Amino acid sequence: MKVTISEVAPRDGLQSIDGFVPTDTKIALVRALHAAGARRMEVGAFVSPRAIPQMADTAQVLAAARQLPGLECCVLVPNRRGFDLALAHGAHRLGLFMSATEGHNRANLNATREESFAGLSAIILDTPPEVALRFNLSCVFHCPFEGVVPEPMVIDWVARIAELDPAMEIALCDTTGNAAPDQVERVFADAVALFGPRFAFHGHDTYGMGLANVAAAWRAGARVIDSAAGGLGGCPFAPGATGNVATEDVAWMFSRMGVETGFDYRTLLTAADLAAAVPGGMPGGRMRGVPAVRKAA
Amino acid sequence: MKVTISEVAPRDGLQSIDGFVPTDTKIALVRALHAAGARRMEVGAFVSPRAIPQMADTAQVLAAARQLPGLECCVLVPNRRGFDLALAHGAHRLGLFMSATEGHNRANLNATREESFAGLSAIILDTPPEVALRFNLSCVFHCPFEGVVPEPMVIDWVARIAELDPAMEIALCDTTGNAAPDQVERVFADAVALFGPRFAFHGHDTYGMGLANVAAAWRAGARVIDSAAGGLGGCPFAPGATGNVATEDVAWMFSRMGVETGFDYRTLLTAADLAAAVPGGMPGGRMRGVPAVRKAA
Repeated sequence: MKVTISEVAPRDGLQSIDGFVPTDTKIALVRALHAAGARRMEVGAFVSPRAIPQMADTAQVLAAARQLPGLECCVLVPNRRGFDLALAHGAHRLGLFMSATEGHNRANLNATREESFAGLSAIILDTPPEVALRFNLSCVFHCPFEGVVPEPMVIDWVARIAELDPAMEIALCDTTGNAAPDQVERVFADAVALFGPRFAFHGHDTYGMGLANVAAAWRAGARVIDSAAGGLGGCPFAPGATGNVATEDVAWMFSRMGVETGFDYRTLLTAADLAAAVPGGMPGGRMRGVPAVRKAA
Repeated sequence: MKVTISEVAPRDGLQSIDGFVPTDTKIALVRALHAAGARRMEVGAFVSPRAIPQMADTAQVLAAARQLPGLECCVLVPNRRGFDLALAHGAHRLGLFMSATEGHNRANLNATREESFAGLSAIILDTPPEVALRFNLSCVFHCPFEGVVPEPMVIDWVARIAELDPAMEIALCDTTGNAAPDQVERVFADAVALFGPRFAFHGHDTYGMGLANVAAAWRAGARVIDSAAGGLGGCPFAPGATGNVATEDVAWMFSRMGVETGFDYRTLLTAADLAAAVPGGMPGGRMRGVPAVRKAA
């Protein structure tokens, strides 16, 4: 068995940090994560540099990441302008996003869900076949404005998204970290049963449930898991959400479950230390080293 | 649905702290946890005060705990002398313990597993019917001396333990925090299928898998879950193991899963703060407050 871990520290991990992280630091982090075995990475976002100044150097980070052998470079794309930039700069995969709830979509994207969906649908139609797509649906389980999200509403949106492109990966995102493991398992099991094995899980560890939710998503058929080295991150538009689930924690859990991750564990811990040391970052990983087997006294 | 959360901060949480925690502080913690809704608590251990000085005042803490309405007071009992003391001081439930692995049993108890089993079997025979029993099997999933523990060996020991007393609760303990959720689920599912719904799970959050393992144990039929307010704790004889899974994290996860815990959440967070503030403690809980539902801007 093999899981694809999509490393998001360079984007989701850094995005919530106020002070601008120098481009060289970002590139060093991308290289360290690649050296540890990361083969898919969200390296940035082609968003307005006024809205999110931290992502203003995405073109440079992407250019450096594209030099790394075997690395699939993903960027977030909120709109047509971001789409054009992502294609021009040679991103391998585009991450589109909208929210499952009206409240979060308005707060995060200043648009209704219908408006977001229409705009993203048009982008999908225009995406050249050699560029991969991922559709991120935020606040699938819990919303800071609407509370626990009813599953039927989620499945309705997933159905509409799934119809747009049968090959497109769909990420069901626990934006606030307040999904419950049984809820995650139920939603993924239903989504996979209805729309096939094309689902990714993006989770946060705000309340300690991060790995429980990753395990639940995996159990129900998610085969791509997002995580950020050092447990960096948080969504500035989801009050209370802090910390992506940590790559080193996720990788260790999968390795204990006998699932291949592609990471070299010791090199990964070095990269996680680098991520956790970014000024302004709020690291949150638990894993500090590989448990040794001791000699009995 | 209802889960029994067995609060272990006064025993497992404090045991690893070097400096003696004053008896009044211990009693205040027990009272705060009871006020928050704890109805089962491991309040101490009748062990040698030379081996574990922190537990030297168990008789006093137990006497205070016994005054609290509706609280089942448990104490750990390693041997005949502890058994006599526990009965003399009116403990409601006795926690017996040995390890699933020879290496940890020797390191922790200075005895072979067969020696421990024989001693505990004799104690069980002599336990009056009005006193409840729990048999804690340590290092069921991973051992600091032997690595990952083979399930057949565990099931063999569980079978022998289950035979001693058909009503006795059996706790399968992840002493190091390095159990994997799929392993926990498998072992509990097999144990429940073979020996009925009498199993408890005791876990640590050393590597971030604490709640994932609690969720897995629950899913497979464990109905009693150990946790320590504030995520205090660790086993001094399991190198690298730090931090029981935190009661506030466990209670929040169950409440999100729609499972009753009996805790008042806000009072519990106050008790968790008290636990985390014990000098020398290494708190580890994640939960800091109940997520509010915000008004959209």
